[in-house]
Amino acid sequence: MLRGHTGSVRGIALSADGRMLASGSEDGTVRLWEAPGGRLLSTLQGHAGGGVWSVTVSTDNRLLASGGLDGTVRLWEVPGGRLIATLEGHTGGVWGVTLSTDGRLLASASFDGTLRLWDAPGGRPLAVLQGHTGPLYGVALAADGQLLASGGEDGTIRLWDASSGAWLRTLRSDRSYERLDITGLTGVTGAQRKALLTLGAVDHHAPAGVIVEPAG
Amino acid sequence: MLRGHTGSVRGIALSADGRMLASGSEDGTVRLWEAPGGRLLSTLQGHAGGGVWSVTVSTDNRLLASGGLDGTVRLWEVPGGRLIATLEGHTGGVWGVTLSTDGRLLASASFDGTLRLWDAPGGRPLAVLQGHTGPLYGVALAADGQLLASGGEDGTIRLWDASSGAWLRTLRSDRSYERLDITGLTGVTGAQRKALLTLGAVDHHAPAGVIVEPAG
Repeated sequence: MLRGHTGSVRGIALSADGRMLASGSEDGTVRLWEAPGGRLLSTLQGHAGGGVWSVTVSTDNRLLASGGLDGTVRLWEVPGGRLIATLEGHTGGVWGVTLSTDGRLLASASFDGTLRLWDAPGGRPLAVLQGHTGPLYGVALAADGQLLASGGEDGTIRLWDASSGAWLRTLRSDRSYERLDITGLTGVTGAQRKALLTLGAVDHHAPAGVIVEPAG
Repeated sequence: MLRGHTGSVRGIALSADGRMLASGSEDGTVRLWEAPGGRLLSTLQGHAGGGVWSVTVSTDNRLLASGGLDGTVRLWEVPGGRLIATLEGHTGGVWGVTLSTDGRLLASASFDGTLRLWDAPGGRPLAVLQGHTGPLYGVALAADGQLLASGGEDGTIRLWDASSGAWLRTLRSDRSYERLDITGLTGVTGAQRKALLTLGAVDHHAPAGVIVEPAG
């Protein structure tokens, strides 16, 4: 008997009400399950050439988004599993997808170093967010859908206006000791403590004149 | 001048109100930033021997949890950055940490194949959830804090009672075609279609007698 290839599970997501679970697999399939019962609701096939590392279910339980190493994002009907749209544009694997709370905005993060914004459920491309100089490893969308944050290989964090895709600012710290709290730190000499403060560390017990605020 | 090592950003999280952003870095530091302003609030040092891949901020903005490749989970005071507790027990890197909405339960997922539950903010170990036979790659905690799900290398998904740590069930599909919707699928012969249905595929347009429900 033909038995299905079952790859490792790379990403899972529970729906907001905890009644459904979506899973993405190394074998390229996405599965939707009833929770906590465990009944398989649908098997979503379509991603090609690589696993599915990221899945998310919309708050209203009607839409599932998946991001694949094939560089596509796919939108599926829940619970039936019909493919609604294939979102193409990324030139590297998509490891992160996130839907806004109202389910109308989708952000995808890729190893190609870009974020992309799409409208949901249609899948129309809205913006390509460029600036990072390496693969992205982290993405977060604020609950109100206004702020999008990304971080990755280049060591920076970028904040974006999620509605327009406009770049807001880049967060970076070139100094390991900036805003490090050394209050009560022992085992360092006075000179070392002063050096740390000069490098941006903070000591809440230090005499006021010794605190050196980090340069803006 | 001594310049800080700045590693790649491995994980980011926005607080529920979108006013703070936590980042974990390959250099082992965790940073807390004001959002969207971008001011660095604190630098959290403590993780040793590896990067920090996962960070999360509690809903009340008072607690930050980080999981590190050093196998520890750390709890920090927000926004000051004081280390509250170091949670030890995992025998492999921790790549995922998640806090319940009420901030009192912390789940950590590790490459050691276990999930662990801890109370927060104290960090007392509550349970070790064993069963997976390989590294975990996905973890999700339901919004109501009752259901915990995990998935990983072994290809299974496990559901757990988050309050007790009890194993509820294991979701698995050994059959690629189970619950695959082949309604309207073209390019297959009648025999192939029948074979797919036998393997658990579903066709909403097929005569009732042809539909073969997958075995429980």
